[in-house]
Amino acid sequence: MTADTATRRYRRACDYLAASMIYLRDNIMLRDPLKPEHIKPRLLGHWGTCPGITYVYAGLNGLVTRTGQRTLLVTGPGHGAPAVHANLWMEGTHALLDSSLSLDENGMTELVKRFSWPGGFPSHLSPHVPGVIHEGGELGYALPTAVGAALDDPELLVACVIGDGEAETGATAAAWHANKFLNSRTDGRVLPILHLNGYKISSPTVYGTMSDEELISYFLGAGWSPTIVDTRTAADPDLDLAEALDQALAVARPMLIVRSPKGWGLPSHDAHGTPLAGTFHAHQVPLEGVTEDPAQLAVLEAWLRSYRPQELFDENGRPFDDLLSLLPPDKLRMGRVPQANGGTVRRELPLPPLAGHRVDAAEPGSNDASANEALAGWLAELFGTTEDRRDFRIFCPDELESNKLGAVLDVTDRAFTWPVNGYAEHVSPDGRVVEVLSEHLCQGFLQGYLLTGRHGLFPCYEAFASIVDSMVNQYAKFLKMSAEVPWRAPVASLNYLLTSEGWRQEHNGYSHQGPGFINNILTRKASVARVYLPPDANTLLHTARHCLAGTGQINLIVAGKQEYPQWLDFDAAEAHCRAGAGVWEWAADDDRPEVVLASAGTVPTVEALAAVSLLRRHTPDLRIRMVNVVDLLSLAPPDRHPHGLASDAFTRCFGTDVPVVFAFHGYPSAVHETLHGRDTPQRFHVHGYHEEGTTTTPFDLLVANSMSRYDLAADAVRRAWDSKDTSAATALIDERDTLLRSARDNSVDPPEITEWRWNP
Amino acid sequence: MTADTATRRYRRACDYLAASMIYLRDNIMLRDPLKPEHIKPRLLGHWGTCPGITYVYAGLNGLVTRTGQRTLLVTGPGHGAPAVHANLWMEGTHALLDSSLSLDENGMTELVKRFSWPGGFPSHLSPHVPGVIHEGGELGYALPTAVGAALDDPELLVACVIGDGEAETGATAAAWHANKFLNSRTDGRVLPILHLNGYKISSPTVYGTMSDEELISYFLGAGWSPTIVDTRTAADPDLDLAEALDQALAVARPMLIVRSPKGWGLPSHDAHGTPLAGTFHAHQVPLEGVTEDPAQLAVLEAWLRSYRPQELFDENGRPFDDLLSLLPPDKLRMGRVPQANGGTVRRELPLPPLAGHRVDAAEPGSNDASANEALAGWLAELFGTTEDRRDFRIFCPDELESNKLGAVLDVTDRAFTWPVNGYAEHVSPDGRVVEVLSEHLCQGFLQGYLLTGRHGLFPCYEAFASIVDSMVNQYAKFLKMSAEVPWRAPVASLNYLLTSEGWRQEHNGYSHQGPGFINNILTRKASVARVYLPPDANTLLHTARHCLAGTGQINLIVAGKQEYPQWLDFDAAEAHCRAGAGVWEWAADDDRPEVVLASAGTVPTVEALAAVSLLRRHTPDLRIRMVNVVDLLSLAPPDRHPHGLASDAFTRCFGTDVPVVFAFHGYPSAVHETLHGRDTPQRFHVHGYHEEGTTTTPFDLLVANSMSRYDLAADAVRRAWDSKDTSAATALIDERDTLLRSARDNSVDPPEITEWRWNP
Repeated sequence: MTADTATRRYRRACDYLAASMIYLRDNIMLRDPLKPEHIKPRLLGHWGTCPGITYVYAGLNGLVTRTGQRTLLVTGPGHGAPAVHANLWMEGTHALLDSSLSLDENGMTELVKRFSWPGGFPSHLSPHVPGVIHEGGELGYALPTAVGAALDDPELLVACVIGDGEAETGATAAAWHANKFLNSRTDGRVLPILHLNGYKISSPTVYGTMSDEELISYFLGAGWSPTIVDTRTAADPDLDLAEALDQALAVARPMLIVRSPKGWGLPSHDAHGTPLAGTFHAHQVPLEGVTEDPAQLAVLEAWLRSYRPQELFDENGRPFDDLLSLLPPDKLRMGRVPQANGGTVRRELPLPPLAGHRVDAAEPGSNDASANEALAGWLAELFGTTEDRRDFRIFCPDELESNKLGAVLDVTDRAFTWPVNGYAEHVSPDGRVVEVLSEHLCQGFLQGYLLTGRHGLFPCYEAFASIVDSMVNQYAKFLKMSAEVPWRAPVASLNYLLTSEGWRQEHNGYSHQGPGFINNILTRKASVARVYLPPDANTLLHTARHCLAGTGQINLIVAGKQEYPQWLDFDAAEAHCRAGAGVWEWAADDDRPEVVLASAGTVPTVEALAAVSLLRRHTPDLRIRMVNVVDLLSLAPPDRHPHGLASDAFTRCFGTDVPVVFAFHGYPSAVHETLHGRDTPQRFHVHGYHEEGTTTTPFDLLVANSMSRYDLAADAVRRAWDSKDTSAATALIDERDTLLRSARDNSVDPPEITEWRWNP
Repeated sequence: MTADTATRRYRRACDYLAASMIYLRDNIMLRDPLKPEHIKPRLLGHWGTCPGITYVYAGLNGLVTRTGQRTLLVTGPGHGAPAVHANLWMEGTHALLDSSLSLDENGMTELVKRFSWPGGFPSHLSPHVPGVIHEGGELGYALPTAVGAALDDPELLVACVIGDGEAETGATAAAWHANKFLNSRTDGRVLPILHLNGYKISSPTVYGTMSDEELISYFLGAGWSPTIVDTRTAADPDLDLAEALDQALAVARPMLIVRSPKGWGLPSHDAHGTPLAGTFHAHQVPLEGVTEDPAQLAVLEAWLRSYRPQELFDENGRPFDDLLSLLPPDKLRMGRVPQANGGTVRRELPLPPLAGHRVDAAEPGSNDASANEALAGWLAELFGTTEDRRDFRIFCPDELESNKLGAVLDVTDRAFTWPVNGYAEHVSPDGRVVEVLSEHLCQGFLQGYLLTGRHGLFPCYEAFASIVDSMVNQYAKFLKMSAEVPWRAPVASLNYLLTSEGWRQEHNGYSHQGPGFINNILTRKASVARVYLPPDANTLLHTARHCLAGTGQINLIVAGKQEYPQWLDFDAAEAHCRAGAGVWEWAADDDRPEVVLASAGTVPTVEALAAVSLLRRHTPDLRIRMVNVVDLLSLAPPDRHPHGLASDAFTRCFGTDVPVVFAFHGYPSAVHETLHGRDTPQRFHVHGYHEEGTTTTPFDLLVANSMSRYDLAADAVRRAWDSKDTSAATALIDERDTLLRSARDNSVDPPEITEWRWNP
């Protein structure tokens, strides 16, 4: 046993505080014998990982003190919040933001009581905790988040604790290769610290059972320089860690593997013989029944007293100076790193003017263009205006060119730092496009990048955005909570551009057809969630500009990459985007409509307008109004979503009792649920994707889902004239079937479908 | 250059067929000069990966022939379908299932034309393709699927091709550790074949740029015995592969790393100087504009003729005998492995009787029990009845004990084969519970297990099921297509048990509160999707039994692990489950109700019944009916879902014009969208999860989301008596707030909430 170093005493103080947070509501300094009334009524917290987190935190404090290296800590085991709180209290960051958390017995008592208490600190890390950009409740995203935080911030070190539970997740496993995207010249450094305590909730972990040789081999192969620090065999674990950290700063891609006993510091057994320290029983609240069971209470008291708090805190509850002397200079304390409150360092993006990228739409439907190509020109300019600042990036799963956004590669490259021994285009270490075939990594990188004050865009094949459903759910929670924290400044919005949409995945087939990400975003909090379906290039430009200028939200933009007819000129597009939805008078606007045709999305809008054309020919007497919805949530009642159209605007679009035939890009359920709360939702007849698809022609795919112009027109006739003559509907379907046969026989859609012009 | 071996000729034949599938509609044997009219109008396919897949397929054919080892092939790059089709045609499996795909020129022409043609074969692998249990359109799941297929099938070798694009995904990266769950005694073997051709759609791949040393180190560390086969430097690549495969069968955890040029066999450049072979330009359809551009057509013709089809097929289009002589014996040909059509080898599960596990509910609400604990007893028995058959498993992300299903560990163990040098409970190589902290792996393993004819259950924390949203979407597509393939026999249903539900994640907090997986399942095809919310133990038992006995569906069961009041006795529970929804007459059943109180889910049902109790006291005159919904899709109109209640049954529950106050477990939107198509959906007022949460008390969480008994009762009064006296509603809310204050102050819910008894 080595001498009782200050670092060891510092850790004892933090461990004591963390254990107290889990158990105590009173008698925090243990001045009195421990009694049941000192115990919280509900014991909520996770002890197992806490001592290891403090071990790392203390080690990093030492590194920062010795080197002056600004360091951001991302703590993967977010349930180890007590350890982080303890360190934040010790370093005075808690007191800085909240004077009731002062560095004395009152502050200590408040800290301990507030943990896992109604209205207090949640049991996991959360935006309420300074220095935190990662919640960690859903495991897997710490390392990708840390990498995103390091991008384009060359002075920063991002240390990232990864538990051996988290290491089993896919997102983390993929992220070990993120070093191949980090550029030592323009990016900060990432220091992964794999913390192996051997156990998950109740069983051994995969990485915990790997031998040292296996671990070294694995991480060397992944491109890291791994060092193992084993607290169980070290003479002085803090010294070993300090040496390993110092060496880490001297190598190219350092990583540490820390082995420590789960629940390090616990008694070996509880009062009834259940093994504790070094087993999975240490995972959560190790001692059960302490209020009812005097024997367990005695074990708890002995355990808590083993930290000898009176040697760590003076009689006022202030940590002794030798402990405080270990802390880095004020501004370098990890809870105060400005990047962890990214909104405070975020600068407005220098968004170029849109007008130079406008697309001709003087005559609706007369010009074909790819909306994404128009956007790509503007994004390329944005890469130019941010060239020196380097605070805008695109993250994309290898689909930039496929999504017709390749023009940005005229201005920047794909970032990649591993040697490419072969043919490549637009690949360099300095690039600001990150293409990796992992939606998880794209999402995690972008989250880390945004939360540290930068800006970004995530273009994605529509069908595969659902891969990050759960990540965006958790991120939306983080944003919602962040808005409730007064000292958190808003970060730039997270922007998705979903493209290669299912309606034009006729070639890749059924697996590539899936618009469900819309539904997922709709379940998010109304303050956070936005869904836009710009029908053409000019509306996409205005939508993208709005989203990239915004903060605090998750913007889902669904747009087309193919060439489609253009409908709105530049100014009309802006007005339409501002309104969210509106009547397209130039297409149809009967003041006493018998049916409203509505659309949302690129392909549905083409089909809906084509349906209007067909109806002009087949049923010239039918009184029609044509509505387009660019902001899906404009359909929601205004008391359910801030973008919901006011009642009069809604009525101007959809009337009050007329049937609405709605051509919708996604699953019909997304419209159904959004309309809930409007007066007569049952008059909305939504055509959308019904999970019918394969490799076929685009027209075939539309017909299979009752979304073709003929299906829409026929439905409009039937809905409007259900008691009158609907023979026109039959004629329309016959026409459809004739065209379909030719489409199928020749594997090509008829010219009147593919080269359709707006011609009412 | 070595002699032109038979294997090389075999590959030439397959490569020729695959290239033809992508380009040709006629002149398949190239008897005539190639003309534009021989070219398909839409060129849809992916050439880049095809030659490598055939290289592996041919190598495996050799291995099977030499050893008689029954081998199932899982092909991760599902867009390489042309290669698999070519091999299936060569081995006569196509002809066996469809005589129009005979081994002659007619059959060859039909095969080539049918690929990527409306009504023909999709451009990706799909259930239409024999031997296939994995689609591969959404990358990442090949290796977990292969592992699942190998479990409990000790005679089987599952070879799994993983492209270097796919290798970048999280699911695949995590799956490299799946070897730690494979037992050499009771499981089959998995042979991963990492196929590195260096490029994704348009950029280099991570694994493709890793050096041989890095790759070997990485995979050794992960526990494999890797061998690199580099076709670019091999004197005879087929010989090298054969040797590597022979050696693979002799080591414990073999894996192969195959390096081959992308688009292997293509010309080096197209007619206009774009590099092709060995670059990303080979990814999809390498030669653009072949119908309009004679120079490109000439390159295509020269490329196709370079395979010299006349040397490979006789004048009738039949492959020469030396090629066919390479094929394994009929029954061992990979397209015919029975496990790949799992429904044909599936046996009915020996489900134990439920009755022994029934929970006392003679008096509704008088007995508390954990539904999951009751289920665990039955599942433990099921592990007993399947002990010798080994065709039932549980896959769970380390939450079995936490979810109160630990009783199964009395009968079986957690499977784990790496040395556990430390304390552990219920861990052994022979276990049939797989606990790995990766929902992706659990899902992938289970898919592979089910698709090869076995049975399983996936218990999961509710909030984290969304991690596999996209996987279940793809699996649902696979099931939907499988049902359209006449020779596919149905496999056992995929069963989720979502538990640790958000309403009782007051301790873990906001990140653990998220019922969105329900919404995701609702977007699936009605023929596949089922959602059950059994409110107590006996209903859970009957639901679970129904789901485990079923085939072809995805069953989502949401149940509680905590102790809750029990409502229905064993027989009543069965009747209720069969009905899907029904009036609980014993609680309230006025024949002229002013309001219907409805519930779905464990906690909402407790609260709704408590609301009825409150209303009896506060508003004895209010005429109430109480309805419980166990099958969520019983709410859907019967023309939209087969479980939708007929109109009269729906009216019996909900009347026709009475307000319905609906206490729902998940997001209200799930009910709103399900109700669409019913006559008056706007009279349903759904209380559910509104994304309000933190670490607090259960009652606080309910109130934050307007789901407490007081909120439900007050809403019922207001909806029923909106033009009458609603002062009772105010009194109820006052009572709620008083209780809430005491809950928050003491961090514990008042006894009348926590120990509530049904007492109308």
